[in-house]
Amino acid sequence: MLLRRVGPRWPLPKRFPVFLQPQQRLRPQTQLRNCSSCPPEQATPKPPPPDHRDLGTQQELFTTSFYSPGSAIFLPNGARIFNRLVDFLRKQYVRHGFQEVITPTIYKKALWAKSGHLENYAEDMYTVTSTSPSRAEVTEAGEEDEYGLKPMNCPGHCLIFASQLRSYRDLPIRYADFSPLHRNEISGALSGLTRVRRFHQDDGHIFCRPLQIEEEIRKTLEFIRLTYGVFRLGSYRLALSTRPERYMGDLEDWEQAENALKRALDASGQPWTINEGDGAFYGPKIDIVLKDSDGKEHQTATIQLDFQLPKRFNLEYMAPAPLLEKRGETTTDPELLAHYGPVAPVMIHRAVLGSVERLMALLIEHYNGKWPFWLNPRQAVIVTVNDTEPVVKWAQHTRNVLLGIDSDVDAPVSPTNFGAVDVDESTRPLSKKIMEAKAKGYGVIAVIGLRDVAAGTIMVDATSFAPADASEEEKKKLKGLKMTPEELLDFMKKKVTAYA
Amino acid sequence: MLLRRVGPRWPLPKRFPVFLQPQQRLRPQTQLRNCSSCPPEQATPKPPPPDHRDLGTQQELFTTSFYSPGSAIFLPNGARIFNRLVDFLRKQYVRHGFQEVITPTIYKKALWAKSGHLENYAEDMYTVTSTSPSRAEVTEAGEEDEYGLKPMNCPGHCLIFASQLRSYRDLPIRYADFSPLHRNEISGALSGLTRVRRFHQDDGHIFCRPLQIEEEIRKTLEFIRLTYGVFRLGSYRLALSTRPERYMGDLEDWEQAENALKRALDASGQPWTINEGDGAFYGPKIDIVLKDSDGKEHQTATIQLDFQLPKRFNLEYMAPAPLLEKRGETTTDPELLAHYGPVAPVMIHRAVLGSVERLMALLIEHYNGKWPFWLNPRQAVIVTVNDTEPVVKWAQHTRNVLLGIDSDVDAPVSPTNFGAVDVDESTRPLSKKIMEAKAKGYGVIAVIGLRDVAAGTIMVDATSFAPADASEEEKKKLKGLKMTPEELLDFMKKKVTAYA
Repeated sequence: MLLRRVGPRWPLPKRFPVFLQPQQRLRPQTQLRNCSSCPPEQATPKPPPPDHRDLGTQQELFTTSFYSPGSAIFLPNGARIFNRLVDFLRKQYVRHGFQEVITPTIYKKALWAKSGHLENYAEDMYTVTSTSPSRAEVTEAGEEDEYGLKPMNCPGHCLIFASQLRSYRDLPIRYADFSPLHRNEISGALSGLTRVRRFHQDDGHIFCRPLQIEEEIRKTLEFIRLTYGVFRLGSYRLALSTRPERYMGDLEDWEQAENALKRALDASGQPWTINEGDGAFYGPKIDIVLKDSDGKEHQTATIQLDFQLPKRFNLEYMAPAPLLEKRGETTTDPELLAHYGPVAPVMIHRAVLGSVERLMALLIEHYNGKWPFWLNPRQAVIVTVNDTEPVVKWAQHTRNVLLGIDSDVDAPVSPTNFGAVDVDESTRPLSKKIMEAKAKGYGVIAVIGLRDVAAGTIMVDATSFAPADASEEEKKKLKGLKMTPEELLDFMKKKVTAYA
Repeated sequence: MLLRRVGPRWPLPKRFPVFLQPQQRLRPQTQLRNCSSCPPEQATPKPPPPDHRDLGTQQELFTTSFYSPGSAIFLPNGARIFNRLVDFLRKQYVRHGFQEVITPTIYKKALWAKSGHLENYAEDMYTVTSTSPSRAEVTEAGEEDEYGLKPMNCPGHCLIFASQLRSYRDLPIRYADFSPLHRNEISGALSGLTRVRRFHQDDGHIFCRPLQIEEEIRKTLEFIRLTYGVFRLGSYRLALSTRPERYMGDLEDWEQAENALKRALDASGQPWTINEGDGAFYGPKIDIVLKDSDGKEHQTATIQLDFQLPKRFNLEYMAPAPLLEKRGETTTDPELLAHYGPVAPVMIHRAVLGSVERLMALLIEHYNGKWPFWLNPRQAVIVTVNDTEPVVKWAQHTRNVLLGIDSDVDAPVSPTNFGAVDVDESTRPLSKKIMEAKAKGYGVIAVIGLRDVAAGTIMVDATSFAPADASEEEKKKLKGLKMTPEELLDFMKKKVTAYA
């Protein structure tokens, strides 16, 4: 019988054909024109390029709901990739000296007035109020005190910087934050993971001394280069956006900042271009522009210099020779060094992935179902030859070894970080089970039969690790690897550690 | 000179003396009564019990801002503890079969109407609207379409359950979520991490067959027992809250549910009590009530049975003999088994820590600065005997080994999960540096002098690992441990894996 379908179910039928919404796609799709009075074209069309929304449904990565347009709902497979990307960043932060903080989601409008968002960004923001008038906080003037749902983390990080006295010795201070952010995009533009209202950034703010700008930019460019190398997303372009016609602050500040960025770009050894007058009103920026496999460009990472927000928040640190310090200069004059004074730090907004959601869309289309092992939501499956008790038991044992779940139920587990290992112990033919596992994109397929139980081993198919240009010989070597469960765990761990 | 202090700084002066806000504290404080006309009392007062707000400031764990009352701002030290608690749960989820999902922060009011929150919970919720009227979504009736800022994750998890067809073979399905939640507490009650408006739950929802209720409750109680054992928070009480006067659903459902909970409680072997008529309107629940060191009780974990939400969302799974299935009964009658039909799953809301913020407050006061190593925000410090180049270099090398940051800057790092290892290479006297490190509560203090550089070792003080009742002899053994950096890393890893 057919299932009764009551209430909302996903995926929702697309109300418009795809070609009416070109902005919804990362890549333009080859369109076939058919009308009822024409014979269908005979030429075989090129297969349409991968679409992260279709792949997201196929691989059960994410879904959406009309109850929250523009907010992706990550299903377990998608949440796994999301968390691994965040985890990757957290690990690199140890080397790069970023400290994670956890900051509020809503702030009173007074904060957004102070930061300049109410003036420059209100259109894109959401307002938060008490549902119950009796619980609304009322200001002294008798007006209801409203909140803004945060579109950015920077003002929150300014509050943290301001919460303690800072010395020049403490700088640079680097805060990282993975908070969800909300921006009110118009509903017609919403789609998949690329046009969203709720998203996460691998957001970071560096508070530094003027003389540290260049070094921090250089390190950030290096961080970006290394990260995109891991994703194997291909080459990218660096674009410097300079002072726009309408700008805030001193000309001198701008020149100093643009020159620091130029020197850092030159030092990176990578090609870069200038977008004249395309900077933010508060400072110049470097955008990282990535080409996808179709050659279409996407902006992902960003590095923005900001002299304004520290001033708006009256941020300061104590330094000797403050007048020189402010200009990024040093001295050995003991008289000048004896005098301490407050100096405003420079703030660098930077994101390496940019929007985690957007980068996931790029990765989904780039890998097109062939995830590298460390990101693969389906890393390993154990396929049994039959469903006899010893075979099923050995399969379960192998799974527990790979997951790091020992049998002692009275102790907390310290798993292996392989969050999911599947077992297919169905009674279907082995060849069918293996074919299905391959179609689903498992990185490791481990087969268990009665002989394996006796030998204490498993037969591992790891052909997914073969490079694209591997010979049949090489692939064959990766096909029938006899291993103990512990050896397989070790093999998998090494692949993950190497971001393979 | 004194620093200029401009703009908001934290901690804010307390506007009211503490005794006006008894609800702000986890424990009542011993109050000394003094007035100007009486001589001060002579008796030495007992030291006041630890207050998580004071400790939070001292240890730089969190702060608050009047721009977002009731939303804790976790500083790097606090974020480290927060992330480790979440990581602990994630690890246990592998064994307990929970799958993490990431769900929206705002949902249209239509969802909250469907879930019953608008009717029963609107007072506690925030409303979200477009700041720009031109971007407001308007319903067909011409009204502005508003959102609710989520106070709970359950409706979102119902949407995920409903997004696919489900068979009885798929159940139980267990979703976990660490999303930030918002509840509009009145502002007078806000304080520290215990009375908040924004908090995180280690939230989980189990969708199961009626006949699986008891087993799922039993497993959850086991999960709770194990977790609280790790925290060494002492014993707790289980309280069953039964059908209130005003309730939804069938009497039969209620009795079936209460009996299942009672059987699971009996099977747990732990003492439990009944709160007659104290259940939620949608189902009975088990609360975990914890005693702190003063004997004061706090509700933390919770397990709630819910028959209503699955019905409101028309959730269903396909099962043979649906009439029996619904009653939690099985059959072997082939005729009955041949007929498949839709059945509503039972939903179990459960949290093990409860509010992560609230549990952190309990832990902060319980440990009172003496964090177990795995949770300690200050795990290790390397103290140099002097600041000569070889000593400082060896200290930096040791730090890099402990952090897992190798020297190859051209590869991504796969660190050791020790997010922070501090180095004190100042020129102050060694004894002072060690005293300061002890006062700050470091778990491992590693001293490095010239002789250590030559020997390739470090001198480790690990007395913080000595049990409370350790003899002087035993403590001495932990004081001067000669180790290589790699041996220390191994020692630290073992402690963390054992949640020591």
